Amino acid sequence: MQKKGNRYGTHRVIEPIGVLPQPANKIDNNMDEIYDNEILIDVQTLNIDSASFTDIEARAGGDHEKIKEIMFDIVAKQGKHRNPWTGSGGMLLGTVEKIGDAIKDIIDLKVGDKIATLVSLSLTPLRIDKIKEIRSDIDQVDIDGKAILFESGIYAKIPTDMPENLALSALDVAGAPAQTAKLVKPGDNVLVIGGGGKSGMLCCYEAKKRAGVTGKVIGLCGSEKSATRLRNLNFCDEVIVMDATQPVPVLEKIEELTNGELCDVTINCVNINDTEMTSILATKDVGVVYFFSMATSFTKAALGAEGVGSDVTMIVGNGYTKGHAEITLQELRECPELRKIFEEMYA
Amino acid sequence: MQKKGNRYGTHRVIEPIGVLPQPANKIDNNMDEIYDNEILIDVQTLNIDSASFTDIEARAGGDHEKIKEIMFDIVAKQGKHRNPWTGSGGMLLGTVEKIGDAIKDIIDLKVGDKIATLVSLSLTPLRIDKIKEIRSDIDQVDIDGKAILFESGIYAKIPTDMPENLALSALDVAGAPAQTAKLVKPGDNVLVIGGGGKSGMLCCYEAKKRAGVTGKVIGLCGSEKSATRLRNLNFCDEVIVMDATQPVPVLEKIEELTNGELCDVTINCVNINDTEMTSILATKDVGVVYFFSMATSFTKAALGAEGVGSDVTMIVGNGYTKGHAEITLQELRECPELRKIFEEMYA
Repeated sequence: MQKKGNRYGTHRVIEPIGVLPQPANKIDNNMDEIYDNEILIDVQTLNIDSASFTDIEARAGGDHEKIKEIMFDIVAKQGKHRNPWTGSGGMLLGTVEKIGDAIKDIIDLKVGDKIATLVSLSLTPLRIDKIKEIRSDIDQVDIDGKAILFESGIYAKIPTDMPENLALSALDVAGAPAQTAKLVKPGDNVLVIGGGGKSGMLCCYEAKKRAGVTGKVIGLCGSEKSATRLRNLNFCDEVIVMDATQPVPVLEKIEELTNGELCDVTINCVNINDTEMTSILATKDVGVVYFFSMATSFTKAALGAEGVGSDVTMIVGNGYTKGHAEITLQELRECPELRKIFEEMYA
Repeated sequence: MQKKGNRYGTHRVIEPIGVLPQPANKIDNNMDEIYDNEILIDVQTLNIDSASFTDIEARAGGDHEKIKEIMFDIVAKQGKHRNPWTGSGGMLLGTVEKIGDAIKDIIDLKVGDKIATLVSLSLTPLRIDKIKEIRSDIDQVDIDGKAILFESGIYAKIPTDMPENLALSALDVAGAPAQTAKLVKPGDNVLVIGGGGKSGMLCCYEAKKRAGVTGKVIGLCGSEKSATRLRNLNFCDEVIVMDATQPVPVLEKIEELTNGELCDVTINCVNINDTEMTSILATKDVGVVYFFSMATSFTKAALGAEGVGSDVTMIVGNGYTKGHAEITLQELRECPELRKIFEEMYA
């Protein structure tokens, strides 16, 4: 009889009591028994968050034995791989080894499935038995070990029709294109800020698919190089090279490209500061700005819209939405040009 | 023939060229002539932002002559009253003196109307001729002077059926109840975090009005004192006293109060840190969290939802929405108990 677990994994929190696993200082990584709503994973690869891996590598002076020591130490102290200096985690790849009795008949996983967890390592119970290989260039570490996915945790089954690393590179940003799919309607004018980047390209593809022939998708890029890449993909009706921190010139350009209508949906995928006002001004008063960039400032967005009397709806990017993994992988299946670029650049 | 102005007032920006009036270091406050889309206001009172006034008062050592000197100096250098140390502005009260030719037939204002500007003083061209009275206790300064409202600027006509200060105290937070009115539908479960505060009480009233007899409005307060105030108002189906930074106990309480359904809409009005996760967990997977608190962290909200696999829609509080002033003033007209508390506490 397995013990009954909490949906969010609070049953694994050792200290401080009562918090969620993410902010906890220490969680229980004993995996000899699992709770009734947990999934036990036989881990193959840790995909360490880029900020975290860069930090650990620097502390180790690039020495692999020292990197191993730091990683073992993090997990020994916390029961999870939350980098204490950056606060960040990463994701992992592994095989389902056991599924708790309370959920085994209601989820679409079975023992033996290969999955990527799409929740942060900063909240995932982890035990490392052995570190086998460190691939510094792509922040990946192969291990022998086990991890627990909580009932609320999200995951994606690794598809068998494409290489693992290709799937992982797209799943990493799966939220953005899936939210685009939910927001964009036929006939919409859509602006994708940072359209030539990794999530930007996926969003441009999805936006054009949803806006259709009566819609207009505009990709804004910060450099000629990324603009050329985006133009060659041929998803966008217009590709422009402009500084996204300059609201006035961007507004004038968007007015020109939309016959003064502005955009129904603006998706901000660019990880630089001070692009909130540009996003707001480019969007219709009744439109939606979707901030997927982690560089977004809440107060700049809130006060910015008020300052120019805009009634725009501003949404905080949520990395998860129902079906996000499927929507994103489907893009790579449908579009050989996109798949080729992802293979060249990220896989 | 008046000169043609830009909707956002960029025609008044002196330095640096090309930016919006808010970030500009210096804007033109010459009001001998106005542009064709400007409104000239004969200013009666400056309602200085609380952080800004506290700062100026401290720099002046509380001396009123020194406060005047600092205020004149700010306006002389910038052409607007943006406190250089806090970055913040405030709002103003005055009488419409002139309306630009291009807009005079299309707006609902006429010369002689008394209005409050609801855009920040940090972007409003201002000339101060004389400082007449400083009311330190309520951060107000009476002046002789002029100001310009741009075409995009928002304002509210001061109603004649209630005292000026009462109207101003409610208009200050007009965005929150108006957004509540847009979001809440009949039958909804609604959680208002910080329900006993100024904007919280307005939101609870509006939420109950919209959710109706089939809905349930829950007010969460941080202290017994504010809970008692909210209970006495009788807007909420439930009033609870809990620490909003503790997601797990709040989740359990909300599950209990909603028969495990959770909330359709959660409105966060509490200006303390670390309440993002509580807001997310209390809300249905298909629900909406409206963050009106300026203490909201964008990254905590974004990563928080992803970490618990919640598909909730999170909206950045926009202080402006169409009709926000009317909706808010109407609450004070409809509800004598609310009006009484506002008169006692804020007016």
